[in-house]
Amino acid sequence: MQRKVLIIDCADAPGLITKITGVCFSNGLNIIKNSEFVDNAQGRFFMRTELEGETFSTSLLAELQAVLPQKNRTRLVDAGKKRVVIMVTKEAHCLGDILIKSYSGALDVEIAAVIGNHQVLQPLVEKFDIPFHYVSHQDLNRSEHEAMILERIAEYAPDYIVLAKFMRVLTPEFVIQYPSQIINIHHSFLPAFIGAAPYKQAWERGVKIIGATAHFVTNSLDEGPIIKQDVIPVDHSYSADELARCGRDVEKSVLSKALHLVINEDVIVYGNKTVVF
Amino acid sequence: MQRKVLIIDCADAPGLITKITGVCFSNGLNIIKNSEFVDNAQGRFFMRTELEGETFSTSLLAELQAVLPQKNRTRLVDAGKKRVVIMVTKEAHCLGDILIKSYSGALDVEIAAVIGNHQVLQPLVEKFDIPFHYVSHQDLNRSEHEAMILERIAEYAPDYIVLAKFMRVLTPEFVIQYPSQIINIHHSFLPAFIGAAPYKQAWERGVKIIGATAHFVTNSLDEGPIIKQDVIPVDHSYSADELARCGRDVEKSVLSKALHLVINEDVIVYGNKTVVF
Amino acid sequence: MQRKVLIIDCADAPGLITKITGVCFSNGLNIIKNSEFVDNAQGRFFMRTELEGETFSTSLLAELQAVLPQKNRTRLVDAGKKRVVIMVTKEAHCLGDILIKSYSGALDVEIAAVIGNHQVLQPLVEKFDIPFHYVSHQDLNRSEHEAMILERIAEYAPDYIVLAKFMRVLTPEFVIQYPSQIINIHHSFLPAFIGAAPYKQAWERGVKIIGATAHFVTNSLDEGPIIKQDVIPVDHSYSADELARCGRDVEKSVLSKALHLVINEDVIVYGNKTVVF
Amino acid sequence: MQRKVLIIDCADAPGLITKITGVCFSNGLNIIKNSEFVDNAQGRFFMRTELEGETFSTSLLAELQAVLPQKNRTRLVDAGKKRVVIMVTKEAHCLGDILIKSYSGALDVEIAAVIGNHQVLQPLVEKFDIPFHYVSHQDLNRSEHEAMILERIAEYAPDYIVLAKFMRVLTPEFVIQYPSQIINIHHSFLPAFIGAAPYKQAWERGVKIIGATAHFVTNSLDEGPIIKQDVIPVDHSYSADELARCGRDVEKSVLSKALHLVINEDVIVYGNKTVVF
Repeated sequence: MQRKVLIIDCADAPGLITKITGVCFSNGLNIIKNSEFVDNAQGRFFMRTELEGETFSTSLLAELQAVLPQKNRTRLVDAGKKRVVIMVTKEAHCLGDILIKSYSGALDVEIAAVIGNHQVLQPLVEKFDIPFHYVSHQDLNRSEHEAMILERIAEYAPDYIVLAKFMRVLTPEFVIQYPSQIINIHHSFLPAFIGAAPYKQAWERGVKIIGATAHFVTNSLDEGPIIKQDVIPVDHSYSADELARCGRDVEKSVLSKALHLVINEDVIVYGNKTVVF
Repeated sequence: MQRKVLIIDCADAPGLITKITGVCFSNGLNIIKNSEFVDNAQGRFFMRTELEGETFSTSLLAELQAVLPQKNRTRLVDAGKKRVVIMVTKEAHCLGDILIKSYSGALDVEIAAVIGNHQVLQPLVEKFDIPFHYVSHQDLNRSEHEAMILERIAEYAPDYIVLAKFMRVLTPEFVIQYPSQIINIHHSFLPAFIGAAPYKQAWERGVKIIGATAHFVTNSLDEGPIIKQDVIPVDHSYSADELARCGRDVEKSVLSKALHLVINEDVIVYGNKTVVF
Repeated sequence: MQRKVLIIDCADAPGLITKITGVCFSNGLNIIKNSEFVDNAQGRFFMRTELEGETFSTSLLAELQAVLPQKNRTRLVDAGKKRVVIMVTKEAHCLGDILIKSYSGALDVEIAAVIGNHQVLQPLVEKFDIPFHYVSHQDLNRSEHEAMILERIAEYAPDYIVLAKFMRVLTPEFVIQYPSQIINIHHSFLPAFIGAAPYKQAWERGVKIIGATAHFVTNSLDEGPIIKQDVIPVDHSYSADELARCGRDVEKSVLSKALHLVINEDVIVYGNKTVVF
Repeated sequence: MQRKVLIIDCADAPGLITKITGVCFSNGLNIIKNSEFVDNAQGRFFMRTELEGETFSTSLLAELQAVLPQKNRTRLVDAGKKRVVIMVTKEAHCLGDILIKSYSGALDVEIAAVIGNHQVLQPLVEKFDIPFHYVSHQDLNRSEHEAMILERIAEYAPDYIVLAKFMRVLTPEFVIQYPSQIINIHHSFLPAFIGAAPYKQAWERGVKIIGATAHFVTNSLDEGPIIKQDVIPVDHSYSADELARCGRDVEKSVLSKALHLVINEDVIVYGNKTVVF
């Protein structure tokens, strides 16, 4: 028996579920799990269906197209195991969490390579027999540096690029190469404290809660579709450094949870938002 | 346009979604929101579908029966507005929260009457022009007392009975009259601290979190299907009284959230569990 | 035996705790609970001490001044029971929660009066035999309207003014009359979504968590010292209206918790922040 | 300048804070951070004071004894860096999290050695150049096995022993060797689901929240003083395996947080409880 996940994103219309599940049924496919969502404000229909069957007919997608509204985005994908390249700077917490979870099987991810603009994390990565590429930005302008990184990434043909505390802003030229494939962890409960030094900002503002946000990267810094957010309570006794220490714990936890959702094909991006089934 | 919610609970079988949604579609009904769940361990299928249409044919349920496995439990219900009788003893927090939420429209509930085995909450209830019935248990044995309460309840024909800190255990003879219709708030994060004085137990155990549980009442005390649970962090500095004060806040919040789910027809009971869509 | 709370806010200096507790001890006062905090970044010392004794000498504060750095802010206050005036517009949830908690003793507050710029909440307030003053802003400019409200408030000499969803911005001239005495509930997890329609903003941004913030009001809108914040998880399936419904639950809960802290004299304001013991 | 933490646990008495801080002040020690707690129900006083000074006089503890009630437990310790031995069986998540946090400096712990009754985690441990000792329980009775483990532990003279999913129950003879020094992570929100297979129990009970508990080990299984607890929401759609997967995330997070508190000398054990400052 094979399993696949059918993802549909199209204009809403009457009878869609009947038609879609009818095609699946007539193909001898059993529905293991099914989720739908209609954004009534935008008249848009989303569906994620886990299917099981002896074989998946090569005509399945064509049969579905015949019953779906035009301009639909329909995909038949495998949940689980994704190939990623991780980009880092100097901080170990997010990278370390992914390394351990990948090693222990808690996160179904193949880390093809890690790229760093500093070298400090190389020894950690190599403990796990994963290639580390040091691509310094020194003496390079931004587009030269990005070109070198893109070249490295291309060798590995990853499903996703994970920015695990990569502390440089990517240009639109970079981002456009991997639409909805670059996942960033933002050290803040977006949209609060956009930009640099969020824990210092949080400390100055005297907030009682801090958080982190995992999101897809788009051209606008800190503005891509949010996948996952979480927070922890803090109080007046936390210095900016202690806020940062606690923040790192939330960051790594939120990033891992977001990756789990993405790997499992639970996330559909639309506009600047996500549906997370 | 009318709206109804179709609730189905049956043995799992291939093609159920297609068949069910096909019947809806051929009846001219539009699916506003759809949720399914299959308990693979037990081979059981659950579905909740919000339908909209000009009319709902009287033959709809019969048409569905024709495509469903036998022994299914299928209901066509109205989400929203339910009629409840609330039972109380002396504590105001859960009752007060429901009164205010009902008054302000935050909870779509008609409070038909409140029954108390003490009189202290009568003035509060009467502020809201709701009948309060004082049914003391003094000089009565348990079955005599319950008989008097049941008689009162019967007058109002409620959809649900809410035990808003009613501090007496109901007998199986009482409970059987209203299967899956009696909702209790238990002053503990079940299954911890079953029974009396849970906050004292929690204090003695030195726990760092306390919680509350809203559940349907079955014959076994504290053992019915759980609808909603929530917790709050506490620490060593809380006395048993302060734990109780914080606990009351969680209790009322959990009970209101459970009621909201039940009113909205989001909850399906099966065995000793719930599916909460 | 009497109980008082000593609140000290001064420049940090060596030996402060010894000196302060020494004065208390030599006055025959027993320390029931003691909390200190030093903001090392600003060299500032904060202390909150619950004291118990047969009598509190009239010279106690003078004796403390003799051992404290100059320009200290030292107060001897009673924890518990505070007198408040509540200001509202049309929404019942925060007001209702405070009314019920005051009625049941869960919040140690005397609601001297409620002032509304609309009349819709008058019947609710009067159920609890509390005066409601309708002060419409129609045909008045802002300063005329505020003058009428201030006149009403002055009659009651409240300890605090609670803005329980009062939907108008107060002028600096108003705020300056009650420094660190006006408590607002902001319908957002500040500093995200400052300003109007935060739930619509949150929906558009596709956030996965929403929250609320209780803070003292200062001249800058949405910028006063934060007392309490809390959040709840949400997802793509929430409409802007459903976000608002859930948000109201967080709002009332956060406001009540903030009031409990303020009433208990657990909060010290300094700069644009709070110490919350 | 040196820093030390003074920990005091004694009968409550008037003037304790003045006397204790007086001794500190007369020794030229500055108080960086101070926390007290009185358990009024038991008449017991707890204090944790971070002190800074040029030198710490050898007579400091004797001077303190002169002002404290008899039978006090007074310690002058260093916050930070502790030496631990970790005991494991087969699961990598808790061990992996501690390894990474130790490596990156997020947890101020020296992992002297890891002892496993299975060999599967040896390669992971050795990546970090930490000795792994495989001490199988096969063909040994319990006391023989424990004797071999105790011998290994003794070589390293650890401050604490961390049971990072060590799946065997320790005998009282073992535990008594390291009183309040053995920290366990229990795969449940104690006191719910005591004993084996808690996630299966949780699934059968249909709970809506699962959690984990870090506690010191005493003679009674699952009954030692709780250091830290945390929970996550779950729903009907989680299988027992998925509950376990989410549970592992809470387990590792709770264990790391508990270790951080213990390392920082924030935890005082008394009776079967803890004070966590």
